[in-house]
Amino acid sequence: MAQIVDYLKVAALAGGVGGAKLAHGLAQCLLPEKLTVIVNTGDDFKHLGLYICPDLDTVCYTLAGINNPATGWGREGETWHAMQNIAALGGPDWFNLGDKDLATHLERTRRLHAGQTLSQITNDFCRAWGNKACILPMSDDPVQTWVETDRGELIFQEYFVRYQCQPIVKGFSFQGAEQAKPAPGVIDALTEADLIIICPSNPWVSIQPILSVAGIKQAMERKIVIAVSPLIAGQALKGPAAKMYHEMGIEPSAYAVAQHYHTLISGFILDNSDKILAAEIEVIGIHPYVTDIVMHSIADRARLAWETIQFGEELLSSRKSRR
Amino acid sequence: MAQIVDYLKVAALAGGVGGAKLAHGLAQCLLPEKLTVIVNTGDDFKHLGLYICPDLDTVCYTLAGINNPATGWGREGETWHAMQNIAALGGPDWFNLGDKDLATHLERTRRLHAGQTLSQITNDFCRAWGNKACILPMSDDPVQTWVETDRGELIFQEYFVRYQCQPIVKGFSFQGAEQAKPAPGVIDALTEADLIIICPSNPWVSIQPILSVAGIKQAMERKIVIAVSPLIAGQALKGPAAKMYHEMGIEPSAYAVAQHYHTLISGFILDNSDKILAAEIEVIGIHPYVTDIVMHSIADRARLAWETIQFGEELLSSRKSRR
Repeated sequence: MAQIVDYLKVAALAGGVGGAKLAHGLAQCLLPEKLTVIVNTGDDFKHLGLYICPDLDTVCYTLAGINNPATGWGREGETWHAMQNIAALGGPDWFNLGDKDLATHLERTRRLHAGQTLSQITNDFCRAWGNKACILPMSDDPVQTWVETDRGELIFQEYFVRYQCQPIVKGFSFQGAEQAKPAPGVIDALTEADLIIICPSNPWVSIQPILSVAGIKQAMERKIVIAVSPLIAGQALKGPAAKMYHEMGIEPSAYAVAQHYHTLISGFILDNSDKILAAEIEVIGIHPYVTDIVMHSIADRARLAWETIQFGEELLSSRKSRR
Repeated sequence: MAQIVDYLKVAALAGGVGGAKLAHGLAQCLLPEKLTVIVNTGDDFKHLGLYICPDLDTVCYTLAGINNPATGWGREGETWHAMQNIAALGGPDWFNLGDKDLATHLERTRRLHAGQTLSQITNDFCRAWGNKACILPMSDDPVQTWVETDRGELIFQEYFVRYQCQPIVKGFSFQGAEQAKPAPGVIDALTEADLIIICPSNPWVSIQPILSVAGIKQAMERKIVIAVSPLIAGQALKGPAAKMYHEMGIEPSAYAVAQHYHTLISGFILDNSDKILAAEIEVIGIHPYVTDIVMHSIADRARLAWETIQFGEELLSSRKSRR
């Protein structure tokens, strides 16, 4: 059983699998009414007429304990009968959707067409799945992550799933982000948070889209913000983050990530295997915290979340003592 | 192994289960290039954002041997994971859709949105499912069957599935039928047919919508048309046909059906248990043919199809001899 910190309000920014794992850890350590997870929707896209929110679903499924641990996306105990039969009809099968998972997309699409907002729908779904913490899309307005590559501009899911991250990345853009309003509750959650945590998600395509929504970055100013490194020994546990740093002309490392978030964060958590980088991170004015950041088990998630919270409390009290 | 009549061209009009069974029988007795099945689309409706064609799918699935014999609709060996999870999210679950069946609706909806016609899509799907005979929707244009009832006007699927045929019927209308064009191939199939067969489908809501599409009835004039009774001893084997006759103020019987099609048909096939009605049918100028019309097995379908074809050939040769 994880310990509970009952007085701390936390807002976490998260993308896919790694972010969802730490968010799940946080949900084990905090009162549900004191945790808000703000999730990237830049990956969202329309496929087979369905509105699909990969990161939002991964976070919701993971916190509800109904995620597929083998794939990192979709539902546990999944079947694939619809998709197999779409393939048999010659339909597009490059983006795989399980039968249970399809229910989420069908019902979400139905409700969006009926005029409900993504945040209302997510709230309803979370209640049905038994999630108690607040999970919010970064915005109810469409924001689309485009990846500029040597094969042209691709929407994120085409780059990620269809082309399996093979194209060489030249840049990113978040179409709609400047016009998008943060979803109701996002700015309040950030403003009221004692501590903001940037989960170990891809900085380029999971966290940057959230930060690009007008008003979100500003709401994080003068806050204690801690980022957890998504890179360990220059590699991502999952996904193309390291490849992207490389192709953007930056040596992939925990230091590069800390540098990336430079003006935004007070603390940075990096892996034991990168402890040599702690001093460099301190030099650029960020407090480093070194621990084991790999989350193999559900207990690992709670342990890393606990350490992140403790580290946050240290930064909070040292700020107070400086005042 | 059924016998094959290799010289006869047949067009069949069909609705749901009973119609699909006889159409399957015909597919066993005729060369595939000489059989066209024209299917009711008045029951089609949009649900969960998907374009659903109940009769078209029942006919296609049945002819391909991939239908669910237990339910009369949907696919064999079906699972229900998507629908169970839609229900868990509080979504509409009154119209049940299996996981395999969902593939049909998802891919059809995707293609319709991409600008393909229902008849092109049906043709492609039939090829994928191994159907060789030509199966055509009555029209590529929307026609919607409304049932006027004591609870107000209901679209057919609401009457049929949601309210389980309980409301009392006062009339029917086929919205869009007058503007709808027959699907490409429909008029040619009827004009070129040696024999037109009205399958044992509900006359009010399966066959009438087809006949109400502008040009279809006219193309059947001066043709040998045979109807097979959907009623046996005043009852339908499945569905609300008898209840509808009753509520429309007509005693349900094979005679009532023959009367219904009066100006359109030359021959009428009725069940042994209704043989007493044969004389009355003859009185109104329709040739009766009495046999066992219940199709329990796949062999029954071929046998009834074979008898229907033989009866058609008799009517054809007697017409010739009268000239």
